[in-house]
Amino acid sequence: MAEATKSKKAASDAAAGIRPGEVAVELPARTDASLYYIGRIRTPWKTRDECPKNGRESDAVCTIEVDPRWAAGLAGLETVSHVLVLYWMHEARRDLLVQAPRHYAEHRGTFALRSPVRPNPIAAAVTRLQRIEGNTLYVTGLDCMDGTPLLDLKPYFASTDAAPDATVGWHAGRKR
Amino acid sequence: MAEATKSKKAASDAAAGIRPGEVAVELPARTDASLYYIGRIRTPWKTRDECPKNGRESDAVCTIEVDPRWAAGLAGLETVSHVLVLYWMHEARRDLLVQAPRHYAEHRGTFALRSPVRPNPIAAAVTRLQRIEGNTLYVTGLDCMDGTPLLDLKPYFASTDAAPDATVGWHAGRKR
Repeated sequence: MAEATKSKKAASDAAAGIRPGEVAVELPARTDASLYYIGRIRTPWKTRDECPKNGRESDAVCTIEVDPRWAAGLAGLETVSHVLVLYWMHEARRDLLVQAPRHYAEHRGTFALRSPVRPNPIAAAVTRLQRIEGNTLYVTGLDCMDGTPLLDLKPYFASTDAAPDATVGWHAGRKR
Repeated sequence: MAEATKSKKAASDAAAGIRPGEVAVELPARTDASLYYIGRIRTPWKTRDECPKNGRESDAVCTIEVDPRWAAGLAGLETVSHVLVLYWMHEARRDLLVQAPRHYAEHRGTFALRSPVRPNPIAAAVTRLQRIEGNTLYVTGLDCMDGTPLLDLKPYFASTDAAPDATVGWHAGRKR
């Protein structure tokens, strides 16, 4: 790339909130499927910067308020120890393929990261269930912003969901 | 409910594919967010009945074909041992709150089950990564139908995603 083009691109990237080394893609013109928000997550964290780095860094009890329409679907969930919570990271941009997240010095592909920024900003969090009262779950293990939209709740099965020997090579060898 | 009304409801439920004891809800008039299909999953199973009961019941190597548009996002994922795969169960109905899944004798709330039928039919599967070739991942641990749309790939972190002591009370005490 010529220097003039490069500096023009750098200025345009900075205006778009893209840091040096990050790669954005043009999003498809159409989407393929649609989601319902089925409730809201209440946490102590009002901004992304306030959020813990991950769900096990805080022992805050957060609440998950399921909309009354869906409440009958909770029957039986009170018998589980851990709930897999899927939620929608509604403030995240969706077009970055290579990112420089705030905690790490190096760039990585989006699918090698747990960053909220991804084509479909769905988070999966393993939470410990304290109790259910009516439509409200009390859990630990969340790290999201207050008001985050809920997409799904699932029982966590150790037999299929636990891989305690799993490794993430780049993370083990990362520079900070 | 009067007997005539009951039998009318039973006939209408049967026509809608609702089994006795299942509870359907009216879906909201609007959706709240939209998804991109970012690839396709290839498996040996062409129908839901052919699929294994869960991902650890089969050691079939399945492939995940990421669309070229998103391929740059895979950088670094080759260093992980396990990938959390989110996919869209595109053939599932979305309106059942209480279900009688094929494997179990009793009814449960949707959120106490891993059934594909749920308001947002997103599946989360913990897979073991064999290798990545270009845009294609080779993994074990999937149980979905061939052609299933892909939503997301994430590195699996044992530190936050593994809960080997998790229990599901209703499952331990279930009748078959």
